[in-house]
Amino acid sequence: MTYKGRFITLEGGEGSGKTTAMHELEQFLKQAGKDVVVTREPGGIAIAEKIRAVILDPGHQEMDARTEALLYAAARRQHLVEKVLPALQQGSIVLCDRFVDSSLAYQGAARGLGIDAVYRINAFAIEDCMPDLTLFFDISPENGMARILQNQDREFNRLDGEAMSFHHSVYHAYHQLMERFPDRIVRVNADQPREEVIEEAVQIIQARLFDQA
Amino acid sequence: MTYKGRFITLEGGEGSGKTTAMHELEQFLKQAGKDVVVTREPGGIAIAEKIRAVILDPGHQEMDARTEALLYAAARRQHLVEKVLPALQQGSIVLCDRFVDSSLAYQGAARGLGIDAVYRINAFAIEDCMPDLTLFFDISPENGMARILQNQDREFNRLDGEAMSFHHSVYHAYHQLMERFPDRIVRVNADQPREEVIEEAVQIIQARLFDQA
Repeated sequence: MTYKGRFITLEGGEGSGKTTAMHELEQFLKQAGKDVVVTREPGGIAIAEKIRAVILDPGHQEMDARTEALLYAAARRQHLVEKVLPALQQGSIVLCDRFVDSSLAYQGAARGLGIDAVYRINAFAIEDCMPDLTLFFDISPENGMARILQNQDREFNRLDGEAMSFHHSVYHAYHQLMERFPDRIVRVNADQPREEVIEEAVQIIQARLFDQA
Repeated sequence: MTYKGRFITLEGGEGSGKTTAMHELEQFLKQAGKDVVVTREPGGIAIAEKIRAVILDPGHQEMDARTEALLYAAARRQHLVEKVLPALQQGSIVLCDRFVDSSLAYQGAARGLGIDAVYRINAFAIEDCMPDLTLFFDISPENGMARILQNQDREFNRLDGEAMSFHHSVYHAYHQLMERFPDRIVRVNADQPREEVIEEAVQIIQARLFDQA
């Protein structure tokens, strides 16, 4: 698939601050005169929302981990086709809060299905539409969780309640992914004041996506 | 996965008579004193039924072919884990009307996603749980469709209405699959009177699954 836009994904563990950063990056890019689309799966896409409802139905305790991984890949595909690709084809910059690397880290590594196995089904889902740039917001699981506990505005979600060993698996997996995709994934030091995190992310985006253009 | 039972799948194009044959094979096996479980996806499994409802929702005209293939694989996984594998582990013979080969023929070949690509996501879904034996009910698309048109009891479904080129793609794909999995897939000549089709299928099951045991 060829398109004029730029596809940027934001990744990281719980409490890494990537969602807050995304909205500040959106403002920065808009002020720089860019068309920006901010999204996250399932992104309001009817089919993807219905798939997500199946995944999250609390009555589905018997859901197998592989079923879940296939459903996430299915929802990802539909969100990509209906929302991300049309925006990229129109030349927009798409900022997406979590994408394929989250499945690799959470389901491939932390849930034990294997990064390679989960990568294969996601490769089927996204074809060659990998992000142009992935920002990995790097903060230790301990510091990330400490941040969540301090943040009164943020809801404590199901993943926050996992054992620390789960969060360590996710963290370790993201570092493996950085080694595997060194040209795509760039580390942002997320363990510093918010302004500095944003500044670092902005500089990476400028250097990687605009200075070369 | 190891289990005591035997996993037999029935495959073929529209009008191949496999569903009728399955019920006669069930009777034969029961009379031979075997525990038999007859099923087809989604098989009454709540999660698989909900996934199938997303696939078949007539409002989902915008569903992408890859989304659909991932959803079928997800429903297959859950049906396998909740219904097929427990029966096999208890020593039953499971007769399943369509399984992975249907996805390879219909979605991989006829819908153009590629047999290898669809195989990979199904391999993730079923792990190493391929059927012990697959009966391919071989009848030309023209004769299969002629049979459907003669059969007053059978409902004309969405696939029946596809162009003949679609049914030829499916037919050709099943022959490719027989070449690819010669030890697993055995051809039944389905273009003969019903009694002879059943007799041939019974002989294959006896020869392949019981005489060796």
